[in-house]
Amino acid sequence: MIVPIELESVANIKYDIAIGELPELRYDRKVAIVTNPTVSSLHLEKLKEHIEAPELIVIEVPDGENYKTMDTVLSILDRLFEAKFDRKSLLIAFGGGVIGDMTGFAASIYQRGIAFVQIPTTLLSQVDASVGGKTGVNNRYGKNLIGSFYQPEAVYIDTHFLDTLPSREYAAGIAEVIKMAVMFDAAFFDYLERNDLYGDKKTVMEMIARSVTLKADVVNQDEKESGIRAVLNYGHTFAHVIENEAGYGKYLHGEAVSIGMVMANELAIRLGLLERKEAERIKALLKRNGLPVDYQVKDAQRFYEHFFLDKKSANNKLKFILPGGSMGSFVIRDDIDEIVIKDTLSMFGGGR
Amino acid sequence: MIVPIELESVANIKYDIAIGELPELRYDRKVAIVTNPTVSSLHLEKLKEHIEAPELIVIEVPDGENYKTMDTVLSILDRLFEAKFDRKSLLIAFGGGVIGDMTGFAASIYQRGIAFVQIPTTLLSQVDASVGGKTGVNNRYGKNLIGSFYQPEAVYIDTHFLDTLPSREYAAGIAEVIKMAVMFDAAFFDYLERNDLYGDKKTVMEMIARSVTLKADVVNQDEKESGIRAVLNYGHTFAHVIENEAGYGKYLHGEAVSIGMVMANELAIRLGLLERKEAERIKALLKRNGLPVDYQVKDAQRFYEHFFLDKKSANNKLKFILPGGSMGSFVIRDDIDEIVIKDTLSMFGGGR
Repeated sequence: MIVPIELESVANIKYDIAIGELPELRYDRKVAIVTNPTVSSLHLEKLKEHIEAPELIVIEVPDGENYKTMDTVLSILDRLFEAKFDRKSLLIAFGGGVIGDMTGFAASIYQRGIAFVQIPTTLLSQVDASVGGKTGVNNRYGKNLIGSFYQPEAVYIDTHFLDTLPSREYAAGIAEVIKMAVMFDAAFFDYLERNDLYGDKKTVMEMIARSVTLKADVVNQDEKESGIRAVLNYGHTFAHVIENEAGYGKYLHGEAVSIGMVMANELAIRLGLLERKEAERIKALLKRNGLPVDYQVKDAQRFYEHFFLDKKSANNKLKFILPGGSMGSFVIRDDIDEIVIKDTLSMFGGGR
Repeated sequence: MIVPIELESVANIKYDIAIGELPELRYDRKVAIVTNPTVSSLHLEKLKEHIEAPELIVIEVPDGENYKTMDTVLSILDRLFEAKFDRKSLLIAFGGGVIGDMTGFAASIYQRGIAFVQIPTTLLSQVDASVGGKTGVNNRYGKNLIGSFYQPEAVYIDTHFLDTLPSREYAAGIAEVIKMAVMFDAAFFDYLERNDLYGDKKTVMEMIARSVTLKADVVNQDEKESGIRAVLNYGHTFAHVIENEAGYGKYLHGEAVSIGMVMANELAIRLGLLERKEAERIKALLKRNGLPVDYQVKDAQRFYEHFFLDKKSANNKLKFILPGGSMGSFVIRDDIDEIVIKDTLSMFGGGR
């Protein structure tokens, strides 16, 4: 299954996302696989069997969001310099979103840009990070604050890598899939309701293909996040506060997004944008797929204030992405009354 | 005088180079001027008078190529985070090529890219660095090895800043101008011969305008340095070795390029590509403008071996950019016999 990605908004950006068995990859240039110890121990041997290159090195970086830093990226670059990689060399990002973000960023600044390929191994990175060209690292001021927009030359999605994925991480990926369906595609939402998303490979591949196609459409319409791309943040405004309050590590990002979508839906109901029935459908689908939908807001005022720590609210206007009346549509609102928001938040105080 | 830059090879890249008195600059966003102590003490007050912005900060970084490092770029980013700059904020590169390269790089990776404006204050950066989108820093493996391609939203060239430029630095800029003329524009070469390039502002502005127009043409034909852009390296293959041998700091880059062009010309004469008469014209023009044209090659074999330390020769083929028979034309040769090159080099052993 090939999903061709054409980002018209950026010249010359055209690559394929190949979904299915990892193909044989033959390169006539130096190749570096960037991965982490977890993925490496599970899948590196398989990947190596699929790659032919005049020189192949493996760069292992520590696992986890905590190591998504400029220091790690600089250590990747150092390895490339030591191995005398040149402008024609290639990086392969082999892992989840953290590996993809850092490898893409390293590729974008090594000798002013070399090619990279993504082989995402988590559901989240397969459906989300493989399209859009966002790369970057965290620093003490926040997440993804240093980075670039940079596109891979190809993305290979092999669902077999998902077999070893912990189920919580798998569910976190599904949260982003559901997000796409609610915002953009009612028929896709129906599909997700009707099918076992933990089931056969064909369903999973179909789910991934539809997700990346939807995301590519969005990115195409807005490569620089000035407009519609913001819609991908449905649930995220709440999620960021939840992650912050709970401490990073308690919730996976997708789990926080799941709760965030439920919260956004409640806000949408209050504003007359969404029917309770539709909100319940979304909640049920999240729940059925192993995602959390409850959260204890201890102090609505404090939760509210936390919104403003988020970089996306720099201009002091809170922007909410909400379902837009019917499944598969959205509204962006930055004029919601503080009282309404806090009232909605306080609904989550009782352990619903 | 406005030189419109349209880089067709990169979508949506269109900016003007305004040559003349620095205009009044009114911005409705946060602005940071990035500069160094030398430029700051001479010209910062003047610049500030020309800028209106809701918030204006000045980031001073140490002067010189030695500080063109990732550490300095990260210190710039830190200042921006502390001042809560967002994606709509603007950086102004105010200084020479080092400031431009680092500011452009910082802009390209701050929150995945914010706008920047160049106000180059040296002749070299006015004619050379203001077009092409190369940004970057040095590291222990070499020069400009980490960076990106990133375009400014505007370039303002005010020749009054040149009044305080040391004459050696001014001459170094002229070397790059002469390079452009020899490679691409015989009529421009004639113009340079006929006029006093240290003379009235009108001549200087004309010289700058023609140079940036030529460079924009080249960059347009090849935004990613895969082909014709390499021609801009006329003289540079030799210059890099000279800089290396002499130790960085002895020659300004433009001075080394001047000698490098003379060497390249001798090689071209040997290969029957250039007449002695034309080579002498070029040499005379360089000399008249205060540029060095002599160099003592102590050991041709060692000089030759040094070529291979240059990153541009990673594939072990030496590539030479040479004048191509008549003024304003070029050839690229990667098949020149080692003996011919070393013979040419040994001509520079006698302190010609």
